[in-house]
Amino acid sequence: MTKKFLKKRSKKMGLSPGTMIYVGEAKGKEVTLSVIDYNQDEYITKELRQVEDIAAFRDSPPVTWLNVTGLQNVKVLEKLGEIFNLHPLIMEDILNTDQRPKVEIYDDYLFIVLKIMSYDKDRREISSEQVSIILGNNYIISFLENQGDLFLPVKERIKNPKGRHRTHGADYLAYALIDIIVDHYFLILENLAEELEILEENAIENSGSDFIRNIQLMKRELIYIRKSIWPVRELIGSLFRGDSSLITDFTKPYLKDVYDHTIQIIDTIENFRDIISGILDIYLTKASNRMNEIMKVLTVIATIFIPLTFIVGIYGMNFEFMPELKWRWAYPSLWMIMLTIFIGMIVFFRKKKWI
Amino acid sequence: MTKKFLKKRSKKMGLSPGTMIYVGEAKGKEVTLSVIDYNQDEYITKELRQVEDIAAFRDSPPVTWLNVTGLQNVKVLEKLGEIFNLHPLIMEDILNTDQRPKVEIYDDYLFIVLKIMSYDKDRREISSEQVSIILGNNYIISFLENQGDLFLPVKERIKNPKGRHRTHGADYLAYALIDIIVDHYFLILENLAEELEILEENAIENSGSDFIRNIQLMKRELIYIRKSIWPVRELIGSLFRGDSSLITDFTKPYLKDVYDHTIQIIDTIENFRDIISGILDIYLTKASNRMNEIMKVLTVIATIFIPLTFIVGIYGMNFEFMPELKWRWAYPSLWMIMLTIFIGMIVFFRKKKWI
Amino acid sequence: MTKKFLKKRSKKMGLSPGTMIYVGEAKGKEVTLSVIDYNQDEYITKELRQVEDIAAFRDSPPVTWLNVTGLQNVKVLEKLGEIFNLHPLIMEDILNTDQRPKVEIYDDYLFIVLKIMSYDKDRREISSEQVSIILGNNYIISFLENQGDLFLPVKERIKNPKGRHRTHGADYLAYALIDIIVDHYFLILENLAEELEILEENAIENSGSDFIRNIQLMKRELIYIRKSIWPVRELIGSLFRGDSSLITDFTKPYLKDVYDHTIQIIDTIENFRDIISGILDIYLTKASNRMNEIMKVLTVIATIFIPLTFIVGIYGMNFEFMPELKWRWAYPSLWMIMLTIFIGMIVFFRKKKWI
Amino acid sequence: MTKKFLKKRSKKMGLSPGTMIYVGEAKGKEVTLSVIDYNQDEYITKELRQVEDIAAFRDSPPVTWLNVTGLQNVKVLEKLGEIFNLHPLIMEDILNTDQRPKVEIYDDYLFIVLKIMSYDKDRREISSEQVSIILGNNYIISFLENQGDLFLPVKERIKNPKGRHRTHGADYLAYALIDIIVDHYFLILENLAEELEILEENAIENSGSDFIRNIQLMKRELIYIRKSIWPVRELIGSLFRGDSSLITDFTKPYLKDVYDHTIQIIDTIENFRDIISGILDIYLTKASNRMNEIMKVLTVIATIFIPLTFIVGIYGMNFEFMPELKWRWAYPSLWMIMLTIFIGMIVFFRKKKWI
Amino acid sequence: MTKKFLKKRSKKMGLSPGTMIYVGEAKGKEVTLSVIDYNQDEYITKELRQVEDIAAFRDSPPVTWLNVTGLQNVKVLEKLGEIFNLHPLIMEDILNTDQRPKVEIYDDYLFIVLKIMSYDKDRREISSEQVSIILGNNYIISFLENQGDLFLPVKERIKNPKGRHRTHGADYLAYALIDIIVDHYFLILENLAEELEILEENAIENSGSDFIRNIQLMKRELIYIRKSIWPVRELIGSLFRGDSSLITDFTKPYLKDVYDHTIQIIDTIENFRDIISGILDIYLTKASNRMNEIMKVLTVIATIFIPLTFIVGIYGMNFEFMPELKWRWAYPSLWMIMLTIFIGMIVFFRKKKWI
Repeated sequence: MTKKFLKKRSKKMGLSPGTMIYVGEAKGKEVTLSVIDYNQDEYITKELRQVEDIAAFRDSPPVTWLNVTGLQNVKVLEKLGEIFNLHPLIMEDILNTDQRPKVEIYDDYLFIVLKIMSYDKDRREISSEQVSIILGNNYIISFLENQGDLFLPVKERIKNPKGRHRTHGADYLAYALIDIIVDHYFLILENLAEELEILEENAIENSGSDFIRNIQLMKRELIYIRKSIWPVRELIGSLFRGDSSLITDFTKPYLKDVYDHTIQIIDTIENFRDIISGILDIYLTKASNRMNEIMKVLTVIATIFIPLTFIVGIYGMNFEFMPELKWRWAYPSLWMIMLTIFIGMIVFFRKKKWI
Repeated sequence: MTKKFLKKRSKKMGLSPGTMIYVGEAKGKEVTLSVIDYNQDEYITKELRQVEDIAAFRDSPPVTWLNVTGLQNVKVLEKLGEIFNLHPLIMEDILNTDQRPKVEIYDDYLFIVLKIMSYDKDRREISSEQVSIILGNNYIISFLENQGDLFLPVKERIKNPKGRHRTHGADYLAYALIDIIVDHYFLILENLAEELEILEENAIENSGSDFIRNIQLMKRELIYIRKSIWPVRELIGSLFRGDSSLITDFTKPYLKDVYDHTIQIIDTIENFRDIISGILDIYLTKASNRMNEIMKVLTVIATIFIPLTFIVGIYGMNFEFMPELKWRWAYPSLWMIMLTIFIGMIVFFRKKKWI
Repeated sequence: MTKKFLKKRSKKMGLSPGTMIYVGEAKGKEVTLSVIDYNQDEYITKELRQVEDIAAFRDSPPVTWLNVTGLQNVKVLEKLGEIFNLHPLIMEDILNTDQRPKVEIYDDYLFIVLKIMSYDKDRREISSEQVSIILGNNYIISFLENQGDLFLPVKERIKNPKGRHRTHGADYLAYALIDIIVDHYFLILENLAEELEILEENAIENSGSDFIRNIQLMKRELIYIRKSIWPVRELIGSLFRGDSSLITDFTKPYLKDVYDHTIQIIDTIENFRDIISGILDIYLTKASNRMNEIMKVLTVIATIFIPLTFIVGIYGMNFEFMPELKWRWAYPSLWMIMLTIFIGMIVFFRKKKWI
Repeated sequence: MTKKFLKKRSKKMGLSPGTMIYVGEAKGKEVTLSVIDYNQDEYITKELRQVEDIAAFRDSPPVTWLNVTGLQNVKVLEKLGEIFNLHPLIMEDILNTDQRPKVEIYDDYLFIVLKIMSYDKDRREISSEQVSIILGNNYIISFLENQGDLFLPVKERIKNPKGRHRTHGADYLAYALIDIIVDHYFLILENLAEELEILEENAIENSGSDFIRNIQLMKRELIYIRKSIWPVRELIGSLFRGDSSLITDFTKPYLKDVYDHTIQIIDTIENFRDIISGILDIYLTKASNRMNEIMKVLTVIATIFIPLTFIVGIYGMNFEFMPELKWRWAYPSLWMIMLTIFIGMIVFFRKKKWI
Repeated sequence: MTKKFLKKRSKKMGLSPGTMIYVGEAKGKEVTLSVIDYNQDEYITKELRQVEDIAAFRDSPPVTWLNVTGLQNVKVLEKLGEIFNLHPLIMEDILNTDQRPKVEIYDDYLFIVLKIMSYDKDRREISSEQVSIILGNNYIISFLENQGDLFLPVKERIKNPKGRHRTHGADYLAYALIDIIVDHYFLILENLAEELEILEENAIENSGSDFIRNIQLMKRELIYIRKSIWPVRELIGSLFRGDSSLITDFTKPYLKDVYDHTIQIIDTIENFRDIISGILDIYLTKASNRMNEIMKVLTVIATIFIPLTFIVGIYGMNFEFMPELKWRWAYPSLWMIMLTIFIGMIVFFRKKKWI
């Protein structure tokens, strides 16, 4: 029911903590487990059939990256949790895709939750998908709901035997994944910037049938993004400030770089919010100026013609004894009088700057 | 008297601190004392007749959970305070159910005050009840005002001999109780989300007889919840950050999990507040647009017909010497003139985009 | 002169610091000095004639409480300052009753300044009086401007030989005094809560001749209280956090309790501010809705009758050649036409939901 | 040019730092150098002819206070900087009288910049002058732009051989100077309080030709004062918290006292801002109520007479076949009908509470 | 496309970090590399042909300042990065001229990013260019996009053999460069101050065709500057607080001085924002007062003439039996009555203060 403003959580109430339930929509596809195992010299990539096969890769010295796409098969994930000895709450969090972005530091691994944002221009809808990353000493497990090709650019870079990935560990790989996710925020902001320009034009022309609705939608979208990027900034900050020994000194400046990007995103969002409130001000002032103009026209017309109508009304009366009615020059004189009043009024309004 | 905006406290003024007075409404039922005593192998549950019987359970090694429902019998609570050697201010706080959520750390036990929220959809009223929890080394005492079945799901989980409860101590049980209370906030937010959707529709259609009242009610409800959840966040934070040795390392990640829930609740409330102010903006702009439209109609009609009425007024005058009145084509010509004015006005308004 | 928004301080400008000048109004009564000297076994109470008599009590081991009511006799206070060896700035602050609440920690004593609030319902005026407390090792001196019976409940409790006061020191007595002063804030908030309810009804009915004035008064009262309670919170916080060795561990939980009360008061004030702004919104929207309704009536009437008046104006013209005037069914036909226009307008307005 | 909102600084651009240029207006008077040299027994006061003469005083043990009035003679100041061995940036800051209040702690001396505020009631203008103070071990140099008599009260107090000044060092003198400067803020606030009362009356009566301008002026004045007092608070705070050994323990409580004054000033400013926004609300609501009243009158008159005018218009038509025109009682009957409509309208408006 | 509110970054997505791409517009000019090598005795200035030539200067003991103007030749910069052994992310940041101002502290050098603001008065546009500075032990490299003559005043000062530059190191030179960049903010604020004055006049006269647009533009400009100066303040703060050993104690007070300037800039911006909101208030109130005046005129005219028109309408009716029509003094009497009504109305409006 209440899907618009709040995801329904009540179905989880009263359950034992750590109960693994996937709250997203299972899109019918199977879970895929793809492994990339590499170091400076080697590069192996494989699709796993059984989750148990990962054990061999985990124990081999080079960096192992297991990318899990699709979360609907709880069994597979349970098995994975056992193999890598993960805390039950982590497994629950991976499935309960309604988490805030966060990092949790355990003794042997880091658990990172992020959101990958995407924007549907036609439906004007931002959707987000949870990306969970577990960073161990020499392995990374990444969990995606649907977007199997999100990390493609990183995979390409790993293939390159001379790339920086091949000479560095799992933490550098983790950085690369986070970097791609943060970059997606810029994509969305670019989309919103385009829409902001349209909104501004609408405001200046006081057109656009659903202007106010669109402004509100835009505001909500920005709030949504901001709510999502703030914790990302914190988590990256805590990573490069060295709370965990899993992050090497080599990787820290790169994380600092992503951190700067998140600050830039937040700055841009704040900027957009200011622009929106400016646009709204323009719209409202234009609307009120218009109202003023309407009132002016009404007042000018009414103020000129109501007294004149009164005057002609007088000489429409049927009294027997109205001497003016018999005067030879009464009618032209009246015209003169009325013209004088008319011109006087016009001059008055000019002076008032109403016309 | 002043029940609407403030619970009356003045009856307690000047009394010695630690004086035990129950400020809630005694609902006629007796106080019930139910004990659950368990460890990995044993599981005993019993309704106590006399409060003194608890002494035996307290000293037995396994975890003892005493759940007190109903606070109207001050004698029973006094006795309990003596048996467990609790500070008089604690006993006062348990009865004075107007506390802010808080945790107080004593040497031998923790004293936790929480609020369980419930929402009456028909009367649109949020009510809250105080839940006090005392967490000792191997015991928990929980105090409820009325809601005897609040902790039922936990009781069920304890019954299960393979559940996590049976192998862990009183602190894990305390976590489970806090978790259930925090989950109730989500329930209320889901209710409010539904109402928000209705309010938004009302705003767009500018209908709803008591729109503004409802918006204000909604705001107050959110303020009420926020005021209640903020200190909960702080108290859970201080629990898992390890200010007390009564919380084991095993339980801390679970408390961190509840902590994240409270942050999510606060985020959602902030979100709702933004949505409300957006809805209000839509309502007000719609209302002002409507006003504009009304003015436009008035102006168009008045501006067209007032001058025309003036013209026909002229030829209603009874002057003897009005040559036009005798002209053969005067009447049709006048029609032509008036039609020209009429069409000119329409064109003018079209250009102004008023019609 | 400028008494409304600011107490005049300029008369103190350029004077040497520590100059003792009482800035309040001397209400003609004499200064009274009442002493209570007690410990577990003894209880002596006495009105002092001469300020020098206090020296004997001060040096006797049990707790000595000197309550000074009335500050107009600067001599007496000067003497007192000498006897207890108090810093000249303290004596200045006691007399300059325009202080912010604060605590100052000296080596041998604490100097606490508080405000006792009282509310005159009829004149809708909050007034405050300064209460200064000096807490020494085994003595307390309290200074009141007028309210001699403020501490009566505490005096009663001390009389009781089995009360907690008799077994504890001066710091517990200081707590009791602070507690009574903080409780007075609740009294005022209860009064304001009643007025808030009246204001809310006025807003809904858009009545109340001085609604806006009353709202502003209420706001100022809340600001005044908040400005007064904020530093109280801080000062109590610094007391129970143990910045001074004069506060024993026994008393600290009690101070923590008062601290919680101050937080509750601040919460309530914030709450009231939100409620006020909500009430104001209701008032303004009601007023603007009313305006809309007025405009609608005007528009409906004008829009219907202005065109009809034009039509009847046409057939009031006196042209010789107006064939319609001679037609047999012209008059009834015109009625038909006008009725059609009338009904058409009504239908149009119904569709627009204006009537 | 841009003097209204910003002092022009661009003339200093690109210059080497430490370049001494006086940015204020040289008011033609010469620089005066007056020295007061005192300790418990001695008291010497002298006007220096040459800046070099100060060297003798500086090295003599008692407290030396050099008061420099007028900054236009850069040479003199340069010399002074050399004699006391001051950092070139300090000399630049003394002359560049556009500084924020601040304290700078050097090894041998403190450099304090303050603003002395004065208010021209007639022109409603706050002007400020920079006061720079250099506090050395046994000397003080104070720099004033024009206000030579600002420190007169302090000079008087020093003359008194039994005053506190004579037994204490340069830091106590520095406190006295700061105290006088802070007290000037109260003077201005008292002036503003008077104007606030006038503004409030204007708001209630909706009179005052330049009400909005005056409100804005008042706001700017408050912002100006707040901008000036905030850093003063910080700087005094840093002095009494003991960042420098030049401030003795004796002087610290006095500085704490001035610190409390600055807090009171800030509180008062915040208070005034709240009052102003309340006054503005009253004004705007009164204005909008007035608009409503105007609309009501218009609507009542128009709504009553437009339909009646239509009716009389009908019987002004010239159709040959209008049977009513011939009826005997048509005219009185029409009067009855119109009276009924009139009364009906009045009743309707009464019910709506419009009249 | 979306250039107005956001620079397009998406072209960099998915690229390996450290990839050097210049995101600005290459303005066709070549990169120029000018070197100044100086100490107390020597002063050499040279335009480099090849970037490799810098190596010789770098290793010579005196201060070396390499000023790079133009960033379009990525090759040159790559080479430079190698020679000075700079982190690849630094080289990326220099080219990606969309950075926030920041300082990054590496072991051997500091990397400082700043923005030089310039204002085009005619087009009312603030543009900014990135200035990157690398401060090593005895060298500085500064990177400019276009403004080759920005640092001219510093170059002039260095030429002077007795200037402070010649006796101090690279950190003092870095300070001089930062100082010049910060001074440019004052220039822009002076421009804005002039425009603010014009806007204020427009507001008071309610003129200026694009008033609201201009207000919004001004707001955006201030937001833009504030967004740019805030991190500058932080970065200078971290420099003079001594996070890096490259900044000598001699230079720190100078940096503190620039720091004070940034605070002054921020203060001024806040001030301007308050002024703008005040100006907007004036504009809106003037506009609404005007509306009131229009309504008053309309109401006065309509309320006077509508009833009079009704009266003359009555005696325009054609009933056969209207006795008044035959009365001798009917017409003059009616004039009397109408005059009475007219005067009564005028008196009524006078009392209401509408005319």
